[in-house]
Amino acid sequence: MVRKSNVRSKSSRSARQRAVPDGNGRRERRALAMRGAILRAAAGVFRDRGFAETGMRQIAAAADLSAANLYYYFTNKADILYFCQDHSVDRMLEGARELERRRLAPERRLRLVIAAHLVCTLDELDGAAAHTEVDALPPALRRRIVAKRDRYERAVRAIVSEGIRRRVFVKTDPKLTTRAILGALNWTSRWYRPDGRLTPQAVADAFADYFVRGLIR
Amino acid sequence: MVRKSNVRSKSSRSARQRAVPDGNGRRERRALAMRGAILRAAAGVFRDRGFAETGMRQIAAAADLSAANLYYYFTNKADILYFCQDHSVDRMLEGARELERRRLAPERRLRLVIAAHLVCTLDELDGAAAHTEVDALPPALRRRIVAKRDRYERAVRAIVSEGIRRRVFVKTDPKLTTRAILGALNWTSRWYRPDGRLTPQAVADAFADYFVRGLIR
Repeated sequence: MVRKSNVRSKSSRSARQRAVPDGNGRRERRALAMRGAILRAAAGVFRDRGFAETGMRQIAAAADLSAANLYYYFTNKADILYFCQDHSVDRMLEGARELERRRLAPERRLRLVIAAHLVCTLDELDGAAAHTEVDALPPALRRRIVAKRDRYERAVRAIVSEGIRRRVFVKTDPKLTTRAILGALNWTSRWYRPDGRLTPQAVADAFADYFVRGLIR
Repeated sequence: MVRKSNVRSKSSRSARQRAVPDGNGRRERRALAMRGAILRAAAGVFRDRGFAETGMRQIAAAADLSAANLYYYFTNKADILYFCQDHSVDRMLEGARELERRRLAPERRLRLVIAAHLVCTLDELDGAAAHTEVDALPPALRRRIVAKRDRYERAVRAIVSEGIRRRVFVKTDPKLTTRAILGALNWTSRWYRPDGRLTPQAVADAFADYFVRGLIR
C-alpha cells in the first residue's frame, strides 16, 4: 500500500477521494480507517507540542509510519486538520439532525446535543484542539468548514428557539445563547486532558445541567 | 527611532524591556504606545487572513510601517502574539482582583468579571482571536501565558465558590462551571465582528444574564 514515488505531488482532494469508501472497496475502507488512526496519533502530537510546532515528521513518528507512507494518506498538515474538522462537524451535524427527527422536548434535546458534541470532541479524538483550529486551514478549506459549522450552529439554535417558542425556555437571544453554549463546548478541547479525573460524560452532564438551568423557566 | 541595522537579531525579551515604561522615559512610553498600535493593526490582519497565513510583511503594511521599523518593536509574529496575550491576561487579572477588593455580592462580581473580560477581548482588540491562540506560541512563552491564565481562572473560580458557600449559587463543580464560562467568553473572539450589530456590552449583558441565571438559587 505504500507508494514511494511522487506521492507528495498528489493533491489533497485526490487523496480524500481515494479514502472515501464508495461501497466497492475494501481498500477504500482500509484507507479511511488508516486516516482515522493517523488522525488520532496526530491529535496527540498537536496537543503535546501545539499545532504550529508540529511537523509531518513528528506525526509520522507518532503514527508509526514512514514519512512516505504518511504522505500517501495526507498531503500536508492542513489536509489532516481538514479531515479532522470535516469528520467531526459531520458527526455533530448528523447527531443534531437525528435528535430533530426524534421530536424530543427542547430541554432533553439540548442536553443530548451537548453530550454528543462533547463525546465527539473529547472522547473520539481525546479532546484535540485540532477540532477547532479553523484559522490554521488555508482559506478555501476554511470556508468549507465554516459553512458546515454554520449549519450545525443553526441546528443547535433551532432547539433554543423552539424552547423559547414553547415557553419552556426564558426569552433570550437564541443566537447569543447558542454561541455561549457552543463556545464553552468547543473550548473544552483547550483544557480537557484524557488522562485526568473527568470522563467526557462527566463534563457533558455538568455542562448540560448548567446550560439548561440557565434557560428553563 | 527607526534602527535599520541588526534589529532582527535583538531578542524579544530586550525589545519588551525597552518598551515597558519605567517612569524615566518618554521614549519607553512612546514605544509602548507604538507596540499597542501595531498590535491593533496585527489583530485585524490575523482576523481577516488567519494567524497562520499572516506574515510580518502584511502586519507592517497594515500598521503603515516599514518592515525594519516593525522589527524594531517586535522580533517576530510570536512576539506580537505574546505581547497581546500577556497584556490582555494582565488586564483581566487586575480587573478580577479589583473586584475582589470591592467585596461585592458573588452574582454582581460574576457579572462584572464577565463584562470586563468581554470588553478586553472584544473592544480593545476588536475581538482578535490572537488573544487566545496560546498554541501558536513557542513552548517557553506558552508556559508563561498558561501560568498567568491559570491565575486568572482561579480568581474567577473563587467567585463561583464563594457564591456556592454563601448559598447564593446552586451547588455545582466550581471548576467546570468556571471553565464553561471562560470557554464561552474566550470563544467570542472567534465569531465577534466589530462591524456587526452587537456591541461588546450587549454580548456581555446577554452572557452575564445567562451564566448568572444558571447558577442563582
